[in-house]
Amino acid sequence: MTAEDAEVDAEENKSLRSLRKPLRPLRFSRVMETKPIDFKVVATEDHARAGILTTRRGEIETPVFMPVGTAGTVKGIRFESLEAPDLNARIILGNTYHLWLRPGIEVIKACGGLHNFIGWERAMLTDSGGFQVWSLAEIRKVTEAGTEFRSHIDGALCFLSPEISMEVQAALGAEIAMAFDECPPGQIEPEVARQSMELTLRWARRSKDAFEVAQVANLRAGGSQDSGAQINNLRYRQALFGIIQGASHLDLRRESLERTVEIGFDGYAVGGLSVGEEKPLMLDIIEDIAPRMPADKPRYLMGVGTPEDLIEAVARGVDMFDCVLPTRNGRNGQAFTSRGTLNIKNARFATDTRPLDEACSCSVCRRHSRAFIRHLYLAGEMLASILLTHHNLVFFLDTLRRVRQAIRSGQFAKFRREFTEQFSFGLE
Amino acid sequence: MTAEDAEVDAEENKSLRSLRKPLRPLRFSRVMETKPIDFKVVATEDHARAGILTTRRGEIETPVFMPVGTAGTVKGIRFESLEAPDLNARIILGNTYHLWLRPGIEVIKACGGLHNFIGWERAMLTDSGGFQVWSLAEIRKVTEAGTEFRSHIDGALCFLSPEISMEVQAALGAEIAMAFDECPPGQIEPEVARQSMELTLRWARRSKDAFEVAQVANLRAGGSQDSGAQINNLRYRQALFGIIQGASHLDLRRESLERTVEIGFDGYAVGGLSVGEEKPLMLDIIEDIAPRMPADKPRYLMGVGTPEDLIEAVARGVDMFDCVLPTRNGRNGQAFTSRGTLNIKNARFATDTRPLDEACSCSVCRRHSRAFIRHLYLAGEMLASILLTHHNLVFFLDTLRRVRQAIRSGQFAKFRREFTEQFSFGLE
Repeated sequence: MTAEDAEVDAEENKSLRSLRKPLRPLRFSRVMETKPIDFKVVATEDHARAGILTTRRGEIETPVFMPVGTAGTVKGIRFESLEAPDLNARIILGNTYHLWLRPGIEVIKACGGLHNFIGWERAMLTDSGGFQVWSLAEIRKVTEAGTEFRSHIDGALCFLSPEISMEVQAALGAEIAMAFDECPPGQIEPEVARQSMELTLRWARRSKDAFEVAQVANLRAGGSQDSGAQINNLRYRQALFGIIQGASHLDLRRESLERTVEIGFDGYAVGGLSVGEEKPLMLDIIEDIAPRMPADKPRYLMGVGTPEDLIEAVARGVDMFDCVLPTRNGRNGQAFTSRGTLNIKNARFATDTRPLDEACSCSVCRRHSRAFIRHLYLAGEMLASILLTHHNLVFFLDTLRRVRQAIRSGQFAKFRREFTEQFSFGLE
Repeated sequence: MTAEDAEVDAEENKSLRSLRKPLRPLRFSRVMETKPIDFKVVATEDHARAGILTTRRGEIETPVFMPVGTAGTVKGIRFESLEAPDLNARIILGNTYHLWLRPGIEVIKACGGLHNFIGWERAMLTDSGGFQVWSLAEIRKVTEAGTEFRSHIDGALCFLSPEISMEVQAALGAEIAMAFDECPPGQIEPEVARQSMELTLRWARRSKDAFEVAQVANLRAGGSQDSGAQINNLRYRQALFGIIQGASHLDLRRESLERTVEIGFDGYAVGGLSVGEEKPLMLDIIEDIAPRMPADKPRYLMGVGTPEDLIEAVARGVDMFDCVLPTRNGRNGQAFTSRGTLNIKNARFATDTRPLDEACSCSVCRRHSRAFIRHLYLAGEMLASILLTHHNLVFFLDTLRRVRQAIRSGQFAKFRREFTEQFSFGLE
């Protein structure tokens, strides 16, 4: 780090401490020289890596699980709880597709970007919308230009492209943005998969170009506005990750990786997994691809997965994860525990005064019984979702905390064996 | 307080500190000598009173607003938030009707009573079920014996009587229980109102008798069980409040009061108001009745009301309140503020970065904007209800905190004038 970098950093830190104060303008060239993120691997055990991802909103120890904040809220939990010591999420996800459709980008811009809009000062990552268009939109037409689809909210005809996604993500202002990709189903023919992969590569290039333009535009807009607060988190270059596609075909995956790296991104993600293919196949692809991904950049496996998936992917060299499982399944009455999953609807818990997980010390397990949470669930009380969501997120984040600790102390192989054994053991 | 009383108190305090430890048996006669609650008026201004209500689970400053925890949860809020410094609820309500139907009293007994079941160590009050039968049940037949009705959950035929209500409330184990009453509509003819009032009086007598029996039975059951944890909060006599009825007829109200006091209770409630009658009529009745209620016992106005109602009732001598307004209206998008109510759905808030109430320092107002909460509400996100509920409860409890402070410093008349003026002023 140069002295000038250090000065910029100090300035950035200061600005974070006083979000509401106007900042004095920075020269554009100087800012662009600043790396948007930094990543260091601090320990390895076979392919597993423990690292530190530094953003301007704090350090994130990896491997990390990022709770999904679809529409600007991690469903069913207050931001204070995400920051509480038992959970302590350092980075959360925002969905470009959802936020773009509602409340819309003009509202979020008027409220000073996504962080200010939702009231979250820690790091964020936004996806590109590619996956949501594929999984949520009702009708769609994929052309070279982009994707045409109907909004899942009101059926309105919408169009998303690399350029639009980058513009939206620049306005949202998360520390990490994602390239706009096409996400094909897991089990498609090689020719179709190749066409899709080639399209994703062309979109990756356009994403990168549009991203640079959007960054410059944001910086200029920032410089021309009076209110520092309004544009604070748009003033610095965001990081952009590329996405590796190629369905279930290893040769395509390898080619996608190589050509995505050629374009050059701040980090790399594996997309299009956990979309219906067999689980062993998913792990085979990760096993082959992850170790080939640039070692000095974070490796992000999108939309995965179960606690076991996370640990298996870490063993193969992955650093970052996101998934709706802990929150969505929590709302559906499922708790993740050290002894596997627990369905709170089960009659056997009617008078069970034990916590969800006897090995857990989260604020829910310290206070509430299975019997009470079951009652809440059956009575349709919101608190059931709130408590299950909180516990499940703690379970996911705490599992990765233990993973990091194990890698750093050279005990990951042992941890992986013991965790898997216990998790598959089932409740007493 | 005698030396023996002090010893009993010390023992009680000790037992509260170690809820899970078995207690050594107490002699029944000794426990019955202990007062279930204590109430002292510490300041007055005209009819308004500031007091301290002492229960075995802590002191409660009055006038007090009790959040409604219908089915064992104050809807949309974690218990940690109820205890947080900005809210600090000292007593909450539980609904006998709801808890009796679901999860049922056997479940709650098996989990050690209502406090243990839900994980709340502060004070509670349970209603008798009389009002819910009237307001929720689909079919009902009122006889001398009790009320026959169909459950609003599954249509099952149920029967509630003074004896059953007392047995259930004893099992729930709240610090304060309520007599079982008939709640007639506000606008009924004097003859029908008299019949209903006479029935409520006979039920009040039966409630008191059954309550004493249930207390003794609970104490005996407690003594015969091995686990101290299971019966901890059933070991001491609960308080029982009588309920004054008489619809909108002052003469009936006065007679009901006089004859309820003759039976003798630990506190007195005014029931059957805020059930469709005109608001001035409600205040007229309170103005006439409240000052006639025993001065050395807490006066509780059931199911009331708006912030203005609370202040007007305090001015007439009421000490305790409960109402679903802050929670229910919060879930429906309404915020209470120092400048009146605010409908978060309103388009004018789309990019309004101000907090719900600019004069509020609750955890919601310190962090989130109207624009964000509006977005959450329109997106159907649970967090909208969670945030509005929290803010509204803070507004109600904080208003009563200011009321208490005003009475203690002889500034209540001024406070009442200023609050009302500002509250009716409307948002800018």
